[in-house]
Amino acid sequence: MENQLYIDLNSDLGESFGHYKIGNDEEIMKYVSSVNIACGFHAGDPTTIKNTVNKALEAGVAIGAHPGFPDLQGFGRRNMHINPEEIYDLTLYQIGALNAFVKASGGKLHHVKPHGALYNMAAKDEQYSKAIVEAVLNIDEDLILYGLSGSQLTAVAKRYGLRCANEAFVDRTYNRSGQLTPRTELNSLIKTEEEALNQVLKMIHEKKVIATTGEEVSIEVDTLCIHGDGIKAVEFAQKVNNTLKQNNIIIQAL
Amino acid sequence: MENQLYIDLNSDLGESFGHYKIGNDEEIMKYVSSVNIACGFHAGDPTTIKNTVNKALEAGVAIGAHPGFPDLQGFGRRNMHINPEEIYDLTLYQIGALNAFVKASGGKLHHVKPHGALYNMAAKDEQYSKAIVEAVLNIDEDLILYGLSGSQLTAVAKRYGLRCANEAFVDRTYNRSGQLTPRTELNSLIKTEEEALNQVLKMIHEKKVIATTGEEVSIEVDTLCIHGDGIKAVEFAQKVNNTLKQNNIIIQAL
Amino acid sequence: MENQLYIDLNSDLGESFGHYKIGNDEEIMKYVSSVNIACGFHAGDPTTIKNTVNKALEAGVAIGAHPGFPDLQGFGRRNMHINPEEIYDLTLYQIGALNAFVKASGGKLHHVKPHGALYNMAAKDEQYSKAIVEAVLNIDEDLILYGLSGSQLTAVAKRYGLRCANEAFVDRTYNRSGQLTPRTELNSLIKTEEEALNQVLKMIHEKKVIATTGEEVSIEVDTLCIHGDGIKAVEFAQKVNNTLKQNNIIIQAL
Amino acid sequence: MENQLYIDLNSDLGESFGHYKIGNDEEIMKYVSSVNIACGFHAGDPTTIKNTVNKALEAGVAIGAHPGFPDLQGFGRRNMHINPEEIYDLTLYQIGALNAFVKASGGKLHHVKPHGALYNMAAKDEQYSKAIVEAVLNIDEDLILYGLSGSQLTAVAKRYGLRCANEAFVDRTYNRSGQLTPRTELNSLIKTEEEALNQVLKMIHEKKVIATTGEEVSIEVDTLCIHGDGIKAVEFAQKVNNTLKQNNIIIQAL
Repeated sequence: MENQLYIDLNSDLGESFGHYKIGNDEEIMKYVSSVNIACGFHAGDPTTIKNTVNKALEAGVAIGAHPGFPDLQGFGRRNMHINPEEIYDLTLYQIGALNAFVKASGGKLHHVKPHGALYNMAAKDEQYSKAIVEAVLNIDEDLILYGLSGSQLTAVAKRYGLRCANEAFVDRTYNRSGQLTPRTELNSLIKTEEEALNQVLKMIHEKKVIATTGEEVSIEVDTLCIHGDGIKAVEFAQKVNNTLKQNNIIIQAL
Repeated sequence: MENQLYIDLNSDLGESFGHYKIGNDEEIMKYVSSVNIACGFHAGDPTTIKNTVNKALEAGVAIGAHPGFPDLQGFGRRNMHINPEEIYDLTLYQIGALNAFVKASGGKLHHVKPHGALYNMAAKDEQYSKAIVEAVLNIDEDLILYGLSGSQLTAVAKRYGLRCANEAFVDRTYNRSGQLTPRTELNSLIKTEEEALNQVLKMIHEKKVIATTGEEVSIEVDTLCIHGDGIKAVEFAQKVNNTLKQNNIIIQAL
Repeated sequence: MENQLYIDLNSDLGESFGHYKIGNDEEIMKYVSSVNIACGFHAGDPTTIKNTVNKALEAGVAIGAHPGFPDLQGFGRRNMHINPEEIYDLTLYQIGALNAFVKASGGKLHHVKPHGALYNMAAKDEQYSKAIVEAVLNIDEDLILYGLSGSQLTAVAKRYGLRCANEAFVDRTYNRSGQLTPRTELNSLIKTEEEALNQVLKMIHEKKVIATTGEEVSIEVDTLCIHGDGIKAVEFAQKVNNTLKQNNIIIQAL
Repeated sequence: MENQLYIDLNSDLGESFGHYKIGNDEEIMKYVSSVNIACGFHAGDPTTIKNTVNKALEAGVAIGAHPGFPDLQGFGRRNMHINPEEIYDLTLYQIGALNAFVKASGGKLHHVKPHGALYNMAAKDEQYSKAIVEAVLNIDEDLILYGLSGSQLTAVAKRYGLRCANEAFVDRTYNRSGQLTPRTELNSLIKTEEEALNQVLKMIHEKKVIATTGEEVSIEVDTLCIHGDGIKAVEFAQKVNNTLKQNNIIIQAL
C-alpha cells in the first residue's frame, strides 16, 4: 500500500487558432490526468480556450495554463530575447485570461506550464524562472508549476515556496547529465514505442534514466508529457496509459 | 444633506503599446474618479497594463477593464462583424487578463466598460449586449458595467441584474431622442468648453440635456467620460473637476 | 472551331500559417488552371507564400494574389468597416508582397482576387471596388481582376479599363436576380455533385443558371471557383475537371 | 575638385502604426539624403507606408526599405531566433510590399537597410546576411544594401556582387576593433553634440574613428544614420547637415 506509485500524464492542448484546427483534444483527454491549455499568444484564441476548458472539465482532467511567447507564426518555439520584467507581464496576462474561463465554467485552475521556447529558456535562465514563478504566485499561491526536471525553473520555484512538478518527456532521450538531448541532435527522439515505454517505467520505478551514452542517471519525475498532435498521438497516449495501469501505477494529477 | 449630488468622472487610459506611448495617464488620474484600462486587443500590452494598474492604485481611482475588438491598427474603432458567442469570449478573455494585474497588485476590479466600436455596436445590439453582460457576470457579479445612457447595453444589464452606470460624454452633443449625435455629423462635438461645462451641470442638476434641435430631453447620468489624449486633455479634465467641485458636486466612483 | 468553349478553374490556396497547415494545394493544382494565393493578412505567411508560388510555377497554373482583411483569427471572413483609402493601401501592400515572390521565382503575376469579406463587401460597394481596382492598376495594368459575376467590382473594373474575369461558384446556388444565395440561408449550397456539375455545364453552354425559385437567369462566367480545403475537395476538383474535358471545354486561364 | 567629399545621411522613418504616431518625418527629410521606411512588421502599416513614400518623393530623398522582425510590441529590437530560410522570406515580403508603394507613386526603390535586431544579428551572422542579400538581389540587382561598416552583412554583400553602403552612427561610440560599443555599456552613446560632430568629420576626412580606449581605428563610411525620433532629433539633424555643408562635404545618396 505504501509502495503505491503515482504519476501524472499531461498534454498540451487547445492549440487551434480561429479557422485553423489542430490536435485531437477530446481523444487525448481520455488518457491523461492533466492538460495544459494554450493561452492565445503562441496558439489558442478566446473561443478555443473556452471550448477546451469546457471539454477538460467534462473529462475531469486537471487544467493548467500554458503561456508562451507572443509568436503565433513560430508557434512559440523560437527564442525571443524579452526582458524578465516583460516575461512576468506576459505570463501573468496569459494565466489571468485562461483563469477567467476556468472560473466562468465553475472549475479551478490547477497548474501552469510554460510553452516551448519560454519553457526551454526558463529551464536555463534564473531571471526568466523568477519572473514566471512570481507571476504564478501572484495569481494563486496554491498553483503548481510544471517545469523540466532538474531545471532552473523548478529550482527557483522550490526556493520561492511554490509547489512544482518535475516533468519528463515520454519520447525524448537524455544525456549523461540528466538533460534532454537537444532536438537539433539526431538521437533526441526515442526510436521505438517499446523503448519509450521502458524508459517511462524505469523513471517511475527506479527514478533513473539511461543516457544516450549508456550511463544510468537519476531523475525526479512527477509528471510525463505526451504530445497531443501527430497522427499516432492518440494511439500512443492510450498505450502509455495502458502500460502504466498494467504496472499498477495510478495516473492522477498532483 | 439628502440633496448631495454625486458624479463619477471616468477616462480611458493605458492605451500605449510597446514602443508607442500615448496619453497623459498620470496627469488625468488626478482629476477623475475611475479609469478604464485597455486590455491588449485594441490597445495596451501586458507591461502597459501592469504599469497603468499600479499608477491607478497609487492615485486611488476605481479601476475598470476596457475590452475592445482585436484590431490594434484600427484602435478598436472599426466595426467588426463578430458573432455574439465570440464577443462573449473576447470580452471574458480581456477582463480576465486585466483582473490578474489588479489582483496581483492587491486591488479589486471595479467595473467594465467596452471600448470604441464594441461599445457602440453593443449600444444598439441586444445580442452583443447579452454577450458582454454574461462575460461580466461570469467574472464577478459585483462588477459594474459602464454603458451609454439609454442604450441596449444598460437595458440588458438591468434585466440580468447587473449593476450599471449610465454614461454621458462631456464633449458630445445629443439629438432629440437622447442619443449621441453620430461622429460623422458636423455638430457631433460641443464647440466651446463653456457649453460643455454647462451641459455637464444641466445633466447632473436636472437630468436633462438640450438637443441640437433645441428640445430638452431627459438623460440618466451616473458617470461622465473625459478623453485622456489630445493636447488639452489634462487642462480640460482639471476644468471639469473644478467646475463640479465649485458646484458642490462630489466626484466619486459608484 | 469557332465554337470552342473555354473556362478557367481557380482555387484559393496558400492558406496555411506557420505551424498550421490546411489545404491540399499540390493535389488541387493538378485540376485547376489558376490559383489565388493568400498574402499574409487573413492567411498565409512569407514562407507559405514562397512555397506555394514555387509549387504553382511547377504546376504551370496562373498565379493570382488573394488579398484579404487583416483578420487572421476570422480568416478574413468577418466584415470590417475600413475606410476605402485604407482598402487601397492594404490591397496594394498585399499584392506587392506576393508579387515579389512571383518575380523572385521567375514568374509573372497574372491576376488578383479579393478574399472573403473583402470580396463580398466590394461586390456591393462602389468605393471599395474603386480602391481595389486602383491598387491593381497601380501594380500592373495588365493584371486581371477576378470578381463576382454581376457585381460592383467587375462593373468598376470595366469602367476603369481593367480586364476582369466574371467568377461563379461551383457549389453555390443563385437567386432570381442572379446573385448568390447568402450563406446564412439553408439552400445556399448545392446538395449533390451531379447538380453542381449540371449547373457548371449550363453556365458555360448557355450562360444561364436556374435560380432557387426556378427561373432561368443570365450569368456571365469566365472563371469557376473550386474550394481547396475539405475532405472531398481534391476528388471533387478532379470530377469537375473531368466533366469539363468530357464536354470538350478547354480549361485554361484567361 | 578631385578631392570633393561626399556622404549620405540616412534616417529610419515611417514608424507610426495606426492610431500611434511617432517621429518627425517631414522635418527630418529636409536634412537627410536618404530614408529607410518601416515595412509593417516591426513598425509601419500600409497607410503609413503610402504617406511616408509620398512625402519622401516630394522631398526628393532616396527611398529605402527597412524590413524588421515580426515583433511590433518589441519594435523589432528583440532578438528572435528565426531560421535563415524564413529570414529570406520575411525580408523579401517586406521589400516587395514597400516597393509596390514606391512604384505606384512613380518612384524607384533605391536601397534596403535591415532594422534593429535583424540588422544587428545579420552584422554577426553569415547565414542571416546571405538570406538578406539574396532577398535584395531577387527583388532588383541594382539595389544598394546599407549595413554596419565592417560587418558580416557588408562582407557577404560584396562577395555576392551586391553594392553596399558602409554605415556609421552619428551618436554612437566605437571600440578598438572598430565595432560599435554595445548599447548595454554605459559609454555606448557620445555625450556631447560637439564630440559627435567631430567624430563625423574625422570619419569622413580621415576614414578613422577614436575608440573609447583611445586608439585611432580605421573605418569605411558611406552613409551616416541619424535618429528621427526624440525631442531634439530635428534640431540635431539640422546641425549635422550644417556642419557637413560648412566643411564642403556634399550630402547625397550613393
